[in-house]
Amino acid sequence: MSNVRGVPSSNVPEPTLRRLPWYLAYAQLVQQGGGQYLSSTQIAHNIAVDPSMVAKDLSYVNIAGRTRVGYEVDELVRVLERFLGFTQPHKAFLFGVGRLGGALLHDNGLQQFGLEIVAGFDVKRELDGTNINRIPVYHISRFPELREPAGVDIGILTVPVDQAQQVCDTMVEGGIKAVWNFTPYRIRVPENVVVQNTSIYAHLAVMFNRLHAIKEGTR
Amino acid sequence: MSNVRGVPSSNVPEPTLRRLPWYLAYAQLVQQGGGQYLSSTQIAHNIAVDPSMVAKDLSYVNIAGRTRVGYEVDELVRVLERFLGFTQPHKAFLFGVGRLGGALLHDNGLQQFGLEIVAGFDVKRELDGTNINRIPVYHISRFPELREPAGVDIGILTVPVDQAQQVCDTMVEGGIKAVWNFTPYRIRVPENVVVQNTSIYAHLAVMFNRLHAIKEGTR
Repeated sequence: MSNVRGVPSSNVPEPTLRRLPWYLAYAQLVQQGGGQYLSSTQIAHNIAVDPSMVAKDLSYVNIAGRTRVGYEVDELVRVLERFLGFTQPHKAFLFGVGRLGGALLHDNGLQQFGLEIVAGFDVKRELDGTNINRIPVYHISRFPELREPAGVDIGILTVPVDQAQQVCDTMVEGGIKAVWNFTPYRIRVPENVVVQNTSIYAHLAVMFNRLHAIKEGTR
Repeated sequence: MSNVRGVPSSNVPEPTLRRLPWYLAYAQLVQQGGGQYLSSTQIAHNIAVDPSMVAKDLSYVNIAGRTRVGYEVDELVRVLERFLGFTQPHKAFLFGVGRLGGALLHDNGLQQFGLEIVAGFDVKRELDGTNINRIPVYHISRFPELREPAGVDIGILTVPVDQAQQVCDTMVEGGIKAVWNFTPYRIRVPENVVVQNTSIYAHLAVMFNRLHAIKEGTR
């Protein structure tokens, strides 16, 4: 699988992986507007980063630009979507159907980016057998029996902080290979398991701090 | 306001602001377990970072530890919550009541971290006058008249990419001082406006890439 064009390899730096979706979003805009070609300089100008960085980031993607005109927009969109994994369906289980977990079950946008949440799990018995946004919710004890036939590798962790490590351990024991951690807790996993931390509340702290600074006129 | 103990100042580095919520989450766990004192070494060990980094991060917070025993847990929790802005209510408007926007309106957890979404706005006429999770939704044309009396500084941007810049401009013209941008589009704002980018889909790309690498055995 690793030699297929557009399929990601492991040595792509994380900052590059985080910037590529911005380039994709901009390329899609240009595509919608009927644009045919896009240069790294144009992308760089729009994103307000250095053109050499755009060129370097795109060098991982294995797409060739043409001298003077740049990348073909349709191809750029197609190759980036594929490279970023947005076109392949990735099945996920969600653990912790509370406030944030329930909110994520409502976010159909995830599917557009290649993530399909196929079930939610919770310790609350009264949630067992219910549905949220047509996604079934089960008691967490049913996870091991459901995982293997469903072929699920990804677990989304949205439990309270005091259960984060324990539920993470359960996920890993059950065969989950990538944990998308939305809790502010730093979970520990074995070496061959991926953790992606997305603590939106930490982002809130940064925003509040900068906002206060502006209001105080110290910036 | 800037000299009040525990209130943030502008020169706190962003990496520190992003780590402090981890320390807070761990301190709250220890607090729930009845712990009285917590040292930077203990925090560092739990979070798997360097003890000197924890000590340096906490030096911004203006809390004094005691030799040998460390920080008093109750005080650490109180001071960190206040420092991070989680105890003061910050009112926000949400722009774009689509999939992700609707999901965020369902996330009551935000309130616990100091963010209260008081209204949603959308261009779809049929949403005007509706409610989601008891939060009123209005047509976007009503934003200017509603902002000032509500005293709202923060705008959450969850519109489609092709509307991101335009809606952002509307927000800023209407007096929004901090934009929490959930779109993968790099919005441009005047210098005195804060932007916090939280592109959860970019995190997905990183996770997919690392997961593929593991499955291919290249890591």
